[in-house]
Amino acid sequence: MKRFDGREAFELRPVKLTRGFTNIPEGSVLIEVGQTRVICTATVEEKVPLFKKGTGSGWVTAEYSMLPRATQTRNPRESSKGKLTGRTMEIQRLIGRALRSVVDLKKLGERTIWLDCDVIQADGGTRTASITGAYVALVDAVNHLLAKGLIKENPILDSLAAVSVGKVDGMALLDLAYEEDSKAEVDMNVVMTGQGKFVEIQGTAEDIPFGREELDQFLELAEKGIQELMGMQKAAAQVGTGPLSQN
Amino acid sequence: MKRFDGREAFELRPVKLTRGFTNIPEGSVLIEVGQTRVICTATVEEKVPLFKKGTGSGWVTAEYSMLPRATQTRNPRESSKGKLTGRTMEIQRLIGRALRSVVDLKKLGERTIWLDCDVIQADGGTRTASITGAYVALVDAVNHLLAKGLIKENPILDSLAAVSVGKVDGMALLDLAYEEDSKAEVDMNVVMTGQGKFVEIQGTAEDIPFGREELDQFLELAEKGIQELMGMQKAAAQVGTGPLSQN
Amino acid sequence: MKRFDGREAFELRPVKLTRGFTNIPEGSVLIEVGQTRVICTATVEEKVPLFKKGTGSGWVTAEYSMLPRATQTRNPRESSKGKLTGRTMEIQRLIGRALRSVVDLKKLGERTIWLDCDVIQADGGTRTASITGAYVALVDAVNHLLAKGLIKENPILDSLAAVSVGKVDGMALLDLAYEEDSKAEVDMNVVMTGQGKFVEIQGTAEDIPFGREELDQFLELAEKGIQELMGMQKAAAQVGTGPLSQN
Amino acid sequence: MKRFDGREAFELRPVKLTRGFTNIPEGSVLIEVGQTRVICTATVEEKVPLFKKGTGSGWVTAEYSMLPRATQTRNPRESSKGKLTGRTMEIQRLIGRALRSVVDLKKLGERTIWLDCDVIQADGGTRTASITGAYVALVDAVNHLLAKGLIKENPILDSLAAVSVGKVDGMALLDLAYEEDSKAEVDMNVVMTGQGKFVEIQGTAEDIPFGREELDQFLELAEKGIQELMGMQKAAAQVGTGPLSQN
Amino acid sequence: MKRFDGREAFELRPVKLTRGFTNIPEGSVLIEVGQTRVICTATVEEKVPLFKKGTGSGWVTAEYSMLPRATQTRNPRESSKGKLTGRTMEIQRLIGRALRSVVDLKKLGERTIWLDCDVIQADGGTRTASITGAYVALVDAVNHLLAKGLIKENPILDSLAAVSVGKVDGMALLDLAYEEDSKAEVDMNVVMTGQGKFVEIQGTAEDIPFGREELDQFLELAEKGIQELMGMQKAAAQVGTGPLSQN
Amino acid sequence: MKRFDGREAFELRPVKLTRGFTNIPEGSVLIEVGQTRVICTATVEEKVPLFKKGTGSGWVTAEYSMLPRATQTRNPRESSKGKLTGRTMEIQRLIGRALRSVVDLKKLGERTIWLDCDVIQADGGTRTASITGAYVALVDAVNHLLAKGLIKENPILDSLAAVSVGKVDGMALLDLAYEEDSKAEVDMNVVMTGQGKFVEIQGTAEDIPFGREELDQFLELAEKGIQELMGMQKAAAQVGTGPLSQN
Repeated sequence: MKRFDGREAFELRPVKLTRGFTNIPEGSVLIEVGQTRVICTATVEEKVPLFKKGTGSGWVTAEYSMLPRATQTRNPRESSKGKLTGRTMEIQRLIGRALRSVVDLKKLGERTIWLDCDVIQADGGTRTASITGAYVALVDAVNHLLAKGLIKENPILDSLAAVSVGKVDGMALLDLAYEEDSKAEVDMNVVMTGQGKFVEIQGTAEDIPFGREELDQFLELAEKGIQELMGMQKAAAQVGTGPLSQN
Repeated sequence: MKRFDGREAFELRPVKLTRGFTNIPEGSVLIEVGQTRVICTATVEEKVPLFKKGTGSGWVTAEYSMLPRATQTRNPRESSKGKLTGRTMEIQRLIGRALRSVVDLKKLGERTIWLDCDVIQADGGTRTASITGAYVALVDAVNHLLAKGLIKENPILDSLAAVSVGKVDGMALLDLAYEEDSKAEVDMNVVMTGQGKFVEIQGTAEDIPFGREELDQFLELAEKGIQELMGMQKAAAQVGTGPLSQN
Repeated sequence: MKRFDGREAFELRPVKLTRGFTNIPEGSVLIEVGQTRVICTATVEEKVPLFKKGTGSGWVTAEYSMLPRATQTRNPRESSKGKLTGRTMEIQRLIGRALRSVVDLKKLGERTIWLDCDVIQADGGTRTASITGAYVALVDAVNHLLAKGLIKENPILDSLAAVSVGKVDGMALLDLAYEEDSKAEVDMNVVMTGQGKFVEIQGTAEDIPFGREELDQFLELAEKGIQELMGMQKAAAQVGTGPLSQN
Repeated sequence: MKRFDGREAFELRPVKLTRGFTNIPEGSVLIEVGQTRVICTATVEEKVPLFKKGTGSGWVTAEYSMLPRATQTRNPRESSKGKLTGRTMEIQRLIGRALRSVVDLKKLGERTIWLDCDVIQADGGTRTASITGAYVALVDAVNHLLAKGLIKENPILDSLAAVSVGKVDGMALLDLAYEEDSKAEVDMNVVMTGQGKFVEIQGTAEDIPFGREELDQFLELAEKGIQELMGMQKAAAQVGTGPLSQN
Repeated sequence: MKRFDGREAFELRPVKLTRGFTNIPEGSVLIEVGQTRVICTATVEEKVPLFKKGTGSGWVTAEYSMLPRATQTRNPRESSKGKLTGRTMEIQRLIGRALRSVVDLKKLGERTIWLDCDVIQADGGTRTASITGAYVALVDAVNHLLAKGLIKENPILDSLAAVSVGKVDGMALLDLAYEEDSKAEVDMNVVMTGQGKFVEIQGTAEDIPFGREELDQFLELAEKGIQELMGMQKAAAQVGTGPLSQN
Repeated sequence: MKRFDGREAFELRPVKLTRGFTNIPEGSVLIEVGQTRVICTATVEEKVPLFKKGTGSGWVTAEYSMLPRATQTRNPRESSKGKLTGRTMEIQRLIGRALRSVVDLKKLGERTIWLDCDVIQADGGTRTASITGAYVALVDAVNHLLAKGLIKENPILDSLAAVSVGKVDGMALLDLAYEEDSKAEVDMNVVMTGQGKFVEIQGTAEDIPFGREELDQFLELAEKGIQELMGMQKAAAQVGTGPLSQN
């Protein structure tokens, strides 16, 4: 039985990674996962937060936002409301934590890499797309630091990608689109390294609690999806920059 | 090999649940898990948030806070800083979501139950203690509604408790104290129902990514701990109110 | 003619002071005045606000808050609203000012003592209970500093306690409960030292202005009540720690 | 022994009340007490706060602010800082409470009178000058309502004025200027009605606690000063409008 | 003498308008002016602000923001800082006002069109590019309303575009890039209609005040540039949607 | 054809500049333009913003505010709302920019001059009155610095004044009162130097776009008005201080 968009349960949506999407940042990647599109930029800043000062060690952090009309109905800007929602905070903490897990902060030296994930179109899976795209932007920023001789050794310990899985109408599915996500009984985000280990598992029973066997199914789907995403990350690393940066 | 406080890897800290800790709320529970202490109160409010108005269905939501000196060094109040931290938002969203998963909101009718979890002493596991304690406060508030005839049927679908598990010095441990939590390689919070199903799994590799077999170990420890906690919840339901409420 | 709770006009409600209510702070006192309960903690911080830097002199300051369901109807958290109410600011300024009046800030040295007064149940007189309880927590924190040799001389100049008085149905009453406070014609808070001198008098005619003779009556009641409270503060100083800290 | 500005201990500074200082508000008074100058305006608004809706009763409330350079060094604006200080909140709550004490809110009908007290020059006693000036602005606004037939009966129950007293170098003084206020041992603000009754007494020992006889001295000075201020309020009610409004 | 990028004084940078840049909004345009790139979306919302309720008339408003790394150094997000800068407010008020000037709000009916201008890369002239791009998005949104029969008559009164002019090293220049803008002696933004009339002129002498003849030069350059921009707006209206929307 | 208040199209309202309006600031000017009245004070602060530190150069900046009842209906205070409106930000940025254009910041030395413009009565043209008045306050503050020998050379490069012009009922008018401003088809603010050069031109078609010949008319009216205002600024510089400062 096919999904609403013709996919099999174990199929990812079409994924496209465009490096150099904008010209200024040290890393700038547009990730498209089906209709979900996120601009992920990496900025190197030659300072660290207070709690890192004088430690010789660096920092990697993330911020996440959506354009107001990334979604079907317009969301008021968090800048106009004067504060971040809990959802935004939760997501940007997740992205930052995930990326730090594959960086040796000592090798990075006393500098910060900011990963800005700005969703320009949202169709489910924006947080996992952000992680997958931000990893590529991070690699570009690190290569920039290596090329300029600012760091000697590559601080990136492993590759990283993320995907959502879930249960919809009783079926375990890979990479939920909004249509599926909005009625999912279970929603789970999984972040894994190139070595096939878990960095984050966040599973929530939206409606119906789930058992151990179901969990196993979710994790198998996630693992499969993440391996495919890592293949695309590698392919993107070989190719040039996207439509906007050629102006 | 024993833990720093003499416990075995699979042992919970001493747990105490005091119902009726304060007199005013519909439910008021002090939960103590080792040195971690949280006041969980349940308040029934005869209105619902905007998005529930006119639906005939109710709402369950949670707020979480720490007294400034619940921790070794004093934390500035979020009310003085003028905004909630990401950590607070993340935790209170988790508590609310977890409790909603065992409530039939339609049977609750168009009213809100607020669960306020105020940590008066923090020694690791405050969010899981909050869930375990808030569930008991919720039960008391629902019994209050049933006793007053405001609802006819019990809207609580299943029991609920939560525990942390993690990996410290390479060993999988149940119910981390702060001493352990602060150096954990993996930190995982698990919320389960009385039927032994998962409501939330949030696992984070703080330092070293983890594999599938480790995950299995964590989940077994969590399941064991949660069954014990549910025994204590049941026992607490039989007994009267605590030291403060007898004044 | 007896009051609604059986007290005489000149009678305090039952008072209980529990030292060591929580284990972490340098001073931690639960004060119960009838159904009013406040956790007062004292934290020593080895730094001072900007305006005290380099003066060799210390600082004593207070913060006050209520749990949302300390009252009959739930109050939204000030942290969620993003700002303190005028009432909270007024009260915490009063507490801080009162306690500073009995401390020689030079003898304290360049450090701050924070007094956090968190109301867990409110039944009138929370600000005066906070002052009376915070004084005991302050004494414990100062003893801690003396014991560790961080200060040589005791900077506390005199003892301190506070009580409310007021006029209800034309009668001058000591220590108003909420039931009385809410319909008081005059409401007055008095803070006095062990030497019987005034530190603060704040009297407000809620409804009917009052004359000089009435003022005299209020002050006599207050003096009597404060002397009794000081007896209890002394008694509490002799005894051990409370129910929670024995876990 | 004379005071720094040549006054006797029991002397007020020169006081001037200019009605109609600006043209638009229903009441607009410039009060000058020595070098302290406050613009007090009264605005009638044909609505009430939520808690008064449908009660048939009105509301009187106050707001207080200082121009940034009303003082010797420039204070950042509270609007730029994004929040009111505790001092401002405390003062505006006092002004509002004091004025409500002489208004029969039922006779006012379901409308609000806003009293805005904006200090354009500060030399001590701004809160008591605000009360004394705001009372005159309130009278003008009420006369406006009577003249337009919007209310039938005068809701003002009594006249009202306020003054500061204090102890400086061991001497009880009336109406402290900033020079005196900044080194006062005791600082007290007293609000009284035309009938010689107290509406507010707020006395603070800044440095040295005070006894009953001293309190008596303070209150006698205050009573004398307030009677003089009430004479000036009456005189102002007879005369026309000030320099600015004649343009 | 050529400009730093080879342009003549009277030359625009290359301009590209991509309609349908994202799929969800009623209008979605990517405008590129040299290296400056702005996503302009138009959202139709079937409600109006309070001050328009019940008037039968609609509203057009704009919001403006920059991605943090649209510029050479990363700017902290306004959502993280908790408030909009003066610059942002000024710009979004300008965009909204400009677009309202060519819309008959009565013909729009009681609905709002939001124009969101999000700068993804900034190289000077972001506010004028926003206006020029937002106009095209507005046209698409209006066509959508006409096509759905929600409005009968086209409420757009005239076309609209904007450009910057300025004086750099004594020379009047059209369409300043950041390199020029940052050292301009005069900076002027001009908004005009298709009929060649002015909607906004905002000229600022950054350094050296300017005379009437110079003003005339600026306005001639602006008029020429705006006519060219209007040609491109018309051309864009004929063609399909851009790279992202074809996925 | 005369205007609503009897003026000709090219006539200013009566203008009065009172120096020394309050006693404390280095410059303090009350400017009255018809019924519009603004207190403009200049404060010298011996420090500079971060971005000027160590440059040897100073800063001039402005803040603008209105008393709540400066207008026909009371506006809530921005300090109570917790943020500045866009209008306020726009105006205070304009005032600061305009005044900086006639100051040699290097000659000022590393200090800041704050110009606070507080509108006590508003009847149109408050931003231009603020600029015209603030210039006089600035001159007084600079003279204070010269007199005290803190600076050697006068940093003021030229005089400065501002006026509004506009089109009402098809006629170009100088110095719009609120009555005219509220129905203007075009509204333009012009700031000029003593040498007859433009510092700022901000013209907005509120309703009907305007052509080049109209623009020329507006600018001629503005130039005439500004020359008259400069005459009054010079006259004010000769005379003493105003009504309030003589107390």
